[in-house]
Amino acid sequence: MNYLLTVSYIGTNYCGWQYQPNARSVQECFQNAVEDLFGKRFPVTGCSRTDSGVHAKGFLCTVKTDGTESPIDSDKLPMALNVRLPQDISVREAEAVPDAFHPRYNTYGKEYRYIFYDGKCRNPFLQNRAWQICHRLDESKMNSAARLFCGEHDFSSFCSVGTSDDNHVRTVFESNVAREGETVVFRVTGNGFLYNMVRIMAGTLYDVSRGKINESDISRALKCGNRASVGMTAPPYGLYLERVLRKPFGE
Amino acid sequence: MNYLLTVSYIGTNYCGWQYQPNARSVQECFQNAVEDLFGKRFPVTGCSRTDSGVHAKGFLCTVKTDGTESPIDSDKLPMALNVRLPQDISVREAEAVPDAFHPRYNTYGKEYRYIFYDGKCRNPFLQNRAWQICHRLDESKMNSAARLFCGEHDFSSFCSVGTSDDNHVRTVFESNVAREGETVVFRVTGNGFLYNMVRIMAGTLYDVSRGKINESDISRALKCGNRASVGMTAPPYGLYLERVLRKPFGE
Repeated sequence: MNYLLTVSYIGTNYCGWQYQPNARSVQECFQNAVEDLFGKRFPVTGCSRTDSGVHAKGFLCTVKTDGTESPIDSDKLPMALNVRLPQDISVREAEAVPDAFHPRYNTYGKEYRYIFYDGKCRNPFLQNRAWQICHRLDESKMNSAARLFCGEHDFSSFCSVGTSDDNHVRTVFESNVAREGETVVFRVTGNGFLYNMVRIMAGTLYDVSRGKINESDISRALKCGNRASVGMTAPPYGLYLERVLRKPFGE
Repeated sequence: MNYLLTVSYIGTNYCGWQYQPNARSVQECFQNAVEDLFGKRFPVTGCSRTDSGVHAKGFLCTVKTDGTESPIDSDKLPMALNVRLPQDISVREAEAVPDAFHPRYNTYGKEYRYIFYDGKCRNPFLQNRAWQICHRLDESKMNSAARLFCGEHDFSSFCSVGTSDDNHVRTVFESNVAREGETVVFRVTGNGFLYNMVRIMAGTLYDVSRGKINESDISRALKCGNRASVGMTAPPYGLYLERVLRKPFGE
């Protein structure tokens, strides 16, 4: 059986999704929960890595069993795994999918959200859950700049050294910034994201707000591919993987 | 100088506001931060106790100095205290008030919010921040019932043994329930609240949703004053002290 799980987690206490021998990963928590539930170790495959400290609301992963286990209904699976997972991780939904379904290759994009908090004083409820800037941001300037990311571009300026892919061309479907009370939210949807790409976009938008970078700098960066011409990498704790866009299976 | 502070805190790690010799209280954190800042211990007075695990967004307290300290502008005070307070406590605002101002006696009421989460599976982002029911609530029935609390009533049915006050008559100004996505929010504003009163109201509304209590039970409870006729005390982690209603000084 191949189960597709929709997963939420608070990234604060993890090195990210991906298993690492000397750090606590979300994947390892799943491997252990699955082994405890089925009495056997089965592969758990994620839709992507996430950075240490980054959160997820709609991460996708599959659990592929070999048919030797006692079967479990997919609607019972979230509860059965949740009692075996730490409180900061939760399976939100589970469904049976064809064996060939892969959470990376049968999806066509992702939606991220980056949350800035710009109230005067720090907000304890957003500790580790937003980048707390604590001086007023200009969401209108940030929104104009964010729209420049839309479309197909070479995003070499917007990735960190160590990106695994040689091809830096990606398509951004939607990109905008809006105020929600004392937070400013950057939403971006695209067919793929390079290493640290959303966090560098967020850092660049912050620099746009404080006048260190302007729109023509961004347009130039999207052409010249020079990392030094854009903003800093924003901290991980403001970033949320909102959802993964699934292809209808078979496409 | 008498400084009035507006304070937010996550109640999870505290026994409540009030100092207790063998537990960690928010008040003690303030006493220590104030002593560290001014080099001298000054009285810190809160607008109320809060229960262990209960959160606050707009708690009020005063810090009364004796004039021997180096003066500090009230607009600098939030930052100066925040660097000396734990991350789950924050001073949001500070202002100088007349010496006679008392955060309990110069206020005329409070607004509380109680958050129920009724998504299918647990939500890690609301861990310790909502009562996670995990089956669908009937917010419309809860809202009708919540409206019965409005007005002046003897709330003896809605307080726990150990309430300090002999007079159980309180006036509720507003009381309603509304859905916000996968949360259901009970808001109540009144001139005063007995020990555990909001949590018992919330537990009663939960019982209304699941059909264990109906509206006439509540009307009767508001007359007969019998604790056993209403619902359980809802857990503390869903409760937020939203704001304290201040009298114009001098009234």
